[in-house]
Amino acid sequence: MLEEFLSHIREIVSLNMKKCINDSNPIEYAMAYSALSESKMIRAGLIMASGKINNHISKKSLLTLASSIELMHTYSLIHDDLPSMDDDKYRRGKKSCHIEFGEANAILAGDALQTLAYEIICDDRDLSSDEKVICIKLITNACGKNGMVYGQFLDIESESKKIDEDSMENIHSLKTGKLIECAVMLGQIGNLNKNETNALKKFSKKIGLAFQITDDILEITSDIETLGKSTDSDIRNKKSTYATVVGIEAAIEKSKNLSKSAISDLEILESKNINLLIELAKYISYREK
Amino acid sequence: MLEEFLSHIREIVSLNMKKCINDSNPIEYAMAYSALSESKMIRAGLIMASGKINNHISKKSLLTLASSIELMHTYSLIHDDLPSMDDDKYRRGKKSCHIEFGEANAILAGDALQTLAYEIICDDRDLSSDEKVICIKLITNACGKNGMVYGQFLDIESESKKIDEDSMENIHSLKTGKLIECAVMLGQIGNLNKNETNALKKFSKKIGLAFQITDDILEITSDIETLGKSTDSDIRNKKSTYATVVGIEAAIEKSKNLSKSAISDLEILESKNINLLIELAKYISYREK
Repeated sequence: MLEEFLSHIREIVSLNMKKCINDSNPIEYAMAYSALSESKMIRAGLIMASGKINNHISKKSLLTLASSIELMHTYSLIHDDLPSMDDDKYRRGKKSCHIEFGEANAILAGDALQTLAYEIICDDRDLSSDEKVICIKLITNACGKNGMVYGQFLDIESESKKIDEDSMENIHSLKTGKLIECAVMLGQIGNLNKNETNALKKFSKKIGLAFQITDDILEITSDIETLGKSTDSDIRNKKSTYATVVGIEAAIEKSKNLSKSAISDLEILESKNINLLIELAKYISYREK
Repeated sequence: MLEEFLSHIREIVSLNMKKCINDSNPIEYAMAYSALSESKMIRAGLIMASGKINNHISKKSLLTLASSIELMHTYSLIHDDLPSMDDDKYRRGKKSCHIEFGEANAILAGDALQTLAYEIICDDRDLSSDEKVICIKLITNACGKNGMVYGQFLDIESESKKIDEDSMENIHSLKTGKLIECAVMLGQIGNLNKNETNALKKFSKKIGLAFQITDDILEITSDIETLGKSTDSDIRNKKSTYATVVGIEAAIEKSKNLSKSAISDLEILESKNINLLIELAKYISYREK
């Protein structure tokens, strides 16, 4: 069921992103090259699944929000792959954006993807202005100087350093967790009571961390063909990862426990449609790519 | 009068930006280093002056919008200065952000400044949600793939090429003009009739172009101490500029004519408080730094 759901999401979100990025100029080629390349679209899936809890937001608007988050995620990947950052030459099964289009164009494509992520929310026809502002605020909060960007800074800074589990968890929750958390919450803006919202927040924090731990594990246990991205990046950049800090076995255990615990956080919502969120939480820990 | 006004704007906008960028992490140091450094703040001035036409938006909200545009402008300068772009080592009277903090941190600081520009609009207490969405839409439209970013792409692409006056004008209007236009329009969101709005748009387009032409002229006729930025960038990058394409005398003439013509566009608004806009239009063409 989940694979069918995700495959449908990939199709409709890609189609929607394609509409926002036409081929009118070379910067758009670079944007489309990265945004429309093969990707898991877990974040888009989480938004759509979260939206299904009680179908408060129209499917079209959920699609807007899902596209927005995927554009934002793509911008962060393009910039993270740059030579001065993680220097990754391979991403989503093909050359990284800066390898294909040059460094300057990759920086500009990333910049414009961030801009576009906000623009398409402004252009949505079903969301009210109040809802748009809440969504944009959630995204800026997740992506800015106290979220994703700060996580990437800490991640680069941790190169060649020995760091402990807590610091690792902090980096992960900022660099990857914040946007995943944001995706889950975007599906439910202002639409649950306080206890339900808190439960969803706890759930999303846990799966955000589980996602990155599993990424760390797969970077060691999988290969470039399966993952579609470089698997030597952390070693090359002398980065501590969850798998190297606590060991692979403990990391696998941790990821599975987080996923289980996240699912139990959703109990308060069990009268609602939470099946897909539960499936996604499992997938995030048990995935093989 | 104008110098007093601009000096006041610089003071209050800097103070406001300082509040949004506290010193809690090193990325914020880099953001503050660039955003709070000495700058003309023409764009902030234009927003505040445009807001004075009929005082529809509260002074606090104009300050929010002015800060937002200056954060956005700073992000674009930081990224434009990068080695893979214009490779400028000196900006606003001191080392460029990437020289001081390294390339990775400069990219991240730019990214986070863009995010912050939207975030502070969401956080504004006086603007309605409708107004916030209009403002964010105006900014994304000016800064994204069909605006500032595209202009920077074309500018880099024009290196070592001979281009004509029309292409030059197109690059200028995208790279610099769009954000200046946006600044003028932000001071007046939904607050003028159609003819008045069109007049303001024509005005802002013309001063946007005049601003960049004057920048081109000053890069040849002024020096690094006066401008606070590298004056050999265009020559080094083999870029055609307005001054080299039509000659300095013709460029000066063009800038002055644009400024005059822009001022005459405001006639329809003459019953309103347009004095500061007129002063700014003159300053933009006649400035010496």
